[in-house]
Amino acid sequence: MSIAPHPSTSVPSLPGFDDVLAAAARIAPHVHHTPVLRSRSLDELAGCELHFKAEHLQRAGAFKFRGACNAVWSLREDIAALGVVTHSSGNHGAALALAARTRGIPCHVVVPENAVAAKVAAIRAYGATLHYCAPTIAAREATCAVVQADTGAELVHPYTDSRVIAGQGTAALELLGHNGGFDALITPLGGGGLLSGTAITTAAVSRTTRVFGAEPTGAADAFQSLQRGERVTELVPDTICDGLRGLLGAPNFALLRQHRVEVLLADDAATLGALRLFWQRTKQLIEPSSAVALAAVLAHREHFAGRRVGVILSGGNIDLEALAGMLARA
Amino acid sequence: MSIAPHPSTSVPSLPGFDDVLAAAARIAPHVHHTPVLRSRSLDELAGCELHFKAEHLQRAGAFKFRGACNAVWSLREDIAALGVVTHSSGNHGAALALAARTRGIPCHVVVPENAVAAKVAAIRAYGATLHYCAPTIAAREATCAVVQADTGAELVHPYTDSRVIAGQGTAALELLGHNGGFDALITPLGGGGLLSGTAITTAAVSRTTRVFGAEPTGAADAFQSLQRGERVTELVPDTICDGLRGLLGAPNFALLRQHRVEVLLADDAATLGALRLFWQRTKQLIEPSSAVALAAVLAHREHFAGRRVGVILSGGNIDLEALAGMLARA
Repeated sequence: MSIAPHPSTSVPSLPGFDDVLAAAARIAPHVHHTPVLRSRSLDELAGCELHFKAEHLQRAGAFKFRGACNAVWSLREDIAALGVVTHSSGNHGAALALAARTRGIPCHVVVPENAVAAKVAAIRAYGATLHYCAPTIAAREATCAVVQADTGAELVHPYTDSRVIAGQGTAALELLGHNGGFDALITPLGGGGLLSGTAITTAAVSRTTRVFGAEPTGAADAFQSLQRGERVTELVPDTICDGLRGLLGAPNFALLRQHRVEVLLADDAATLGALRLFWQRTKQLIEPSSAVALAAVLAHREHFAGRRVGVILSGGNIDLEALAGMLARA
Repeated sequence: MSIAPHPSTSVPSLPGFDDVLAAAARIAPHVHHTPVLRSRSLDELAGCELHFKAEHLQRAGAFKFRGACNAVWSLREDIAALGVVTHSSGNHGAALALAARTRGIPCHVVVPENAVAAKVAAIRAYGATLHYCAPTIAAREATCAVVQADTGAELVHPYTDSRVIAGQGTAALELLGHNGGFDALITPLGGGGLLSGTAITTAAVSRTTRVFGAEPTGAADAFQSLQRGERVTELVPDTICDGLRGLLGAPNFALLRQHRVEVLLADDAATLGALRLFWQRTKQLIEPSSAVALAAVLAHREHFAGRRVGVILSGGNIDLEALAGMLARA
């Protein structure tokens, strides 16, 4: 028996508020300081005061650009020159491609053969090199490893990377700075990059603000993980929120526990209803993975009644025809 | 032969810039000072610098609230107490209903039996009294006359009313004030209320700025009227731009001629393409009647290349399912 921690069980050091502040300074020349939207009629309907941080108006259409940008601009120059690589065909892939372009370095994105054509086109339009693979997690990781070996590119994971988590924490920093005194903050919850970054920032800046994650009922691994006290890794997600199908990452899990973050569930029907309500009242097109946060507020009013609530809208990358199809079936 | 003008041929006095300034002061407590949106990628695509005045974010979802509000708040108190009436089941009807509510006076809206249920529901939600009639212009006008006779309510026409025209001119006033030095301003063109108000303001504030109207090819009565030098009143409109089906009004025609406004056409396919492009790049949902202005800029680049161009987006009241159907058919 040894009292020294075994290397394979040690947790890499978690990012802290200093990392968020450093990220904010680092990415400031590149990101949009997105607006905070209000709606009288939504406040009335929700029975609370809602402040929407409009990350669907962020560059590349999602908060993901913050973390990607922080990772890209954190690299030492000689390492940066070799480029970055990831295996997300969604918002993180596009965000990393655009972030790499802001620094003029190569970006490689591993894409499964069945990826949505429009998303792949967006990644290509930002100048990334695409590497196709079979549509399995094993194939993705293997292809990614080959690209790393061939090119020396730095892997940037969509939500477990410390630099990514710190970057995502800058959205809450802007929101709390713009309009302080929040009783609660809520963000969508998939892999946990945005939520854990938000928890770090809020703990440092506004200790009395409760932090909530909104998770689809059909992808409730984080909800279950926090209940059980151990990370659920076997769940097969079934939700229209395509940005929230990733399972909670290990560092993200540790940060949510550390900051006592609470998770609220919303089913897909409630999310579509919230999305419809939001565009009708604000003319803003958000993706279902964003609308889940508003849906959770409306479904769990007991936590928010009469309160001042910040809602981080994560992104707006959705095909309108696909959305109309979902609404028609709802 | 008489040299004195015959009463029946005299034109009622047209509104001027003083009326726009008075309107701006009168409606300031009630309207939103809407933002001006920019998009790097749309500028690149259009080959000019585009500044979008976001009237889809105006109260009741369209610029119409400006004119309606000016009309409502222009009324002497004893006349206002009797209420207002109109026969528009579209954006003007909703705008007048909300404007009346800001003053706490009755509003009557004459609605054809086949009106779109969602639009009628919006008008009712703002507190107006609905009066149904057969779906013909004669029936609408007759029903409107009956309501006027019964209630003493003041008629507020959607685009020929001087108070309405002056109110619509305040959108250009904000745009030119916010961000001066425009080479061109362009607005959608239906009955001509927004465009004639814009022409009045621009002539007074920024004489070197050219003013354009964007009209659907399938409802090109204003285009033809300006070419012929007399108002075309026989055209049957055929366009998806439901807000632009009204024929150019007489005072509007006079104002467009007086200010040498030019009309550019865009067909419905181009308008849908522009709408799609706009929501993809900005996540803003605008109605086809707004998108026609961007479509006209893209279809007539010779007027705008390298220029600084203001585009007034008129509204965002569209049913997403209906829009998706249009895009699928386009």
